[in-house]
Amino acid sequence: MAAHLPVDPVALTADLIRCASVTPDEGGALVLLEGVLAAAGFACTRVDRGGISNLYARWGVAGANKSFGFNGHTDVVPVGDLAAWTRDPFGAEVVDGWMYGRGATDMKSGVAAFAAAAVDFVRQTPPDGAVILAITGDEEADALDGTVALLDWMASNGERMTHCLVGEPTCPNEMGEMMKIGRRGSMTCYFTAVGVQGHSAYPHRAKNPMSALVGLMARLEAEPLDQGTAHFDASTLAITTIDCGNKATNVIPAKGFATVNIRFNDAHSGASLTAWLQGHAAAVQAATGVEISMRVTISGESFLTPPGDFSALVAKAVQAETGRVPEYSTSGGTSDARFVKDHCPVVEFGLVGKTMHQVDERVEVAQIHALKAIYTRILRDYFA
Amino acid sequence: MAAHLPVDPVALTADLIRCASVTPDEGGALVLLEGVLAAAGFACTRVDRGGISNLYARWGVAGANKSFGFNGHTDVVPVGDLAAWTRDPFGAEVVDGWMYGRGATDMKSGVAAFAAAAVDFVRQTPPDGAVILAITGDEEADALDGTVALLDWMASNGERMTHCLVGEPTCPNEMGEMMKIGRRGSMTCYFTAVGVQGHSAYPHRAKNPMSALVGLMARLEAEPLDQGTAHFDASTLAITTIDCGNKATNVIPAKGFATVNIRFNDAHSGASLTAWLQGHAAAVQAATGVEISMRVTISGESFLTPPGDFSALVAKAVQAETGRVPEYSTSGGTSDARFVKDHCPVVEFGLVGKTMHQVDERVEVAQIHALKAIYTRILRDYFA
Ligand SMILES: [Zn+2]
Ligand SMILES: [Zn+2]
Repeated sequence: MAAHLPVDPVALTADLIRCASVTPDEGGALVLLEGVLAAAGFACTRVDRGGISNLYARWGVAGANKSFGFNGHTDVVPVGDLAAWTRDPFGAEVVDGWMYGRGATDMKSGVAAFAAAAVDFVRQTPPDGAVILAITGDEEADALDGTVALLDWMASNGERMTHCLVGEPTCPNEMGEMMKIGRRGSMTCYFTAVGVQGHSAYPHRAKNPMSALVGLMARLEAEPLDQGTAHFDASTLAITTIDCGNKATNVIPAKGFATVNIRFNDAHSGASLTAWLQGHAAAVQAATGVEISMRVTISGESFLTPPGDFSALVAKAVQAETGRVPEYSTSGGTSDARFVKDHCPVVEFGLVGKTMHQVDERVEVAQIHALKAIYTRILRDYFA
Repeated sequence: MAAHLPVDPVALTADLIRCASVTPDEGGALVLLEGVLAAAGFACTRVDRGGISNLYARWGVAGANKSFGFNGHTDVVPVGDLAAWTRDPFGAEVVDGWMYGRGATDMKSGVAAFAAAAVDFVRQTPPDGAVILAITGDEEADALDGTVALLDWMASNGERMTHCLVGEPTCPNEMGEMMKIGRRGSMTCYFTAVGVQGHSAYPHRAKNPMSALVGLMARLEAEPLDQGTAHFDASTLAITTIDCGNKATNVIPAKGFATVNIRFNDAHSGASLTAWLQGHAAAVQAATGVEISMRVTISGESFLTPPGDFSALVAKAVQAETGRVPEYSTSGGTSDARFVKDHCPVVEFGLVGKTMHQVDERVEVAQIHALKAIYTRILRDYFA
């Protein structure tokens, strides 16, 4: 058996940053990873759908009783204000111990760390089971053809993960302080109110859609959705816009619009909240005579992997490498864990995400090494 | 002394309609009137200001103890959807007893009726006093350089009216059923709310300007401004628009806008309502941390000429000519009476205004004759 040098996760992160993989462009990132993984004996399959590239890589046999999976994405959000960057966003330049570039924290470093950990692990201590990497190029946009496409393909091909770790950044400030065992769900409701136009001097002859929307928004904001649950913060509702566009001050308009975004915990579901919204809309319509219609998009239901052996295993590995006991959190936006949870227990752990999606996104080089060490220890403990 | 035929108010209305005097264009209308009035011995002065033409015409001496004034406008609103008109909007075509054209009711017929009445009256029974016609070309737009310019000029030149009648259409359905002894005031308040932008998932870290505006609008609509007063309907408040323009459903916006229009009776003033609005804005700002600024434009304060000898004189003339006792009303939008009221008692009487500002605006020819007869009787009774 040939001796291999360990894979350097910092060099791999740099190589990935240099791939301009802004969603939906693959940018060479998955091709690069496929090369590294195939060389280490991973069976690689490109699972492309709807113009999106995804990579499924498995070491070991399909459907093994112990099949540990890593999930992550190589696509990145756009550069934004290029002139405001102090470094090339696709340069991976290292300055004072920090590597700069779009995706430096979200999440090319995470993908590099788990790929390096997986390759070294299977080479050094081939496990009795499978190590799987499910890497998507469509997380930052609609995520319709990303991790979902990988999971669909896996189900159709006898592939499975028994447990999964998503490598998104999870630490607010210090490496190791937080991991995610769930996420709130997210949904958006677009309201349209159609009343009866009229003259401002005679409001009783008109039916003002803006008054109806004010009444509806006030009802929705009147009381909290809940006070939080065992593992979740309280659900939240935010009015993201109200619009009308009427410039005539002597006219009561016929039509108005409002949008609310709800982040909800396991006390609710997209369906229960849709019914709740419909109830309020119907009540306002009955009271005002203004017709209120609504369109709902559910980005993801909430998910929770209740604390247990799996989360404890991950937490122990984090503590061993960082000295910090990670908090079990369900905070933050959505992640692809919302798709994985329908297939196997899933938790998330990654580095400090402070600069993600920002100008001068950057990662501390030492954190990439630390993250690889944590992922390696998780694999070792999982297959022990 | 030469014998004169009476002035035909129908022919004069037709001639005026044929002048395309869409604000701010004079369109020949004031030149035409100046010719008719000067020929009858009226001292005519063109009072032009800010690109607007106005006509001041006086028979008799300036500053006379009895100086009866008529006020009206020759400017008209735009044609609108020309294709929807069944007649030439500047043709003054008469079909089945109705004359068609922009300004047919609002208010070239009114101006023609009082000009014809005034000319015939001073020729036939020269009064001991003055008859004044203050005719503006700027009523339909901002009215900044119209009747106000005439009143300013009059004050500077020793001219005055002891009583004034505005010839706007005042009858909802039947000739003679309503006159105006006042009007509600009108003001508009433009609110700007500046909060702190944030992520929809963390509303507590943001300060949502839309929530603040919803709260403010709900407060303003919570209870009626009043229940009406002796001569006025209740004041009204209408939200005319709310706007934000945020398309990102994961973003709580930084800034939002709302506009309300208030029509107020003599229980309020522009100043008292401005203070009331400021109080609510300050309360919402204190409660939410969202900065709320406001800009107020007052189109006109309310006015009331309390029922008395003058309104009774007008009502009696209307009743004598139409058989109807006109209701003393303060309904409707604003008119130039809001400016005149600062100088002398003012009431309004004119014909049925149903089609004003609409496609196929038209006036019943018989109504123009009736209106001239009413105005003539008012002059006769006033100087009796
Ligand atoms: Zn990410
Ligand atoms: Zn008018």
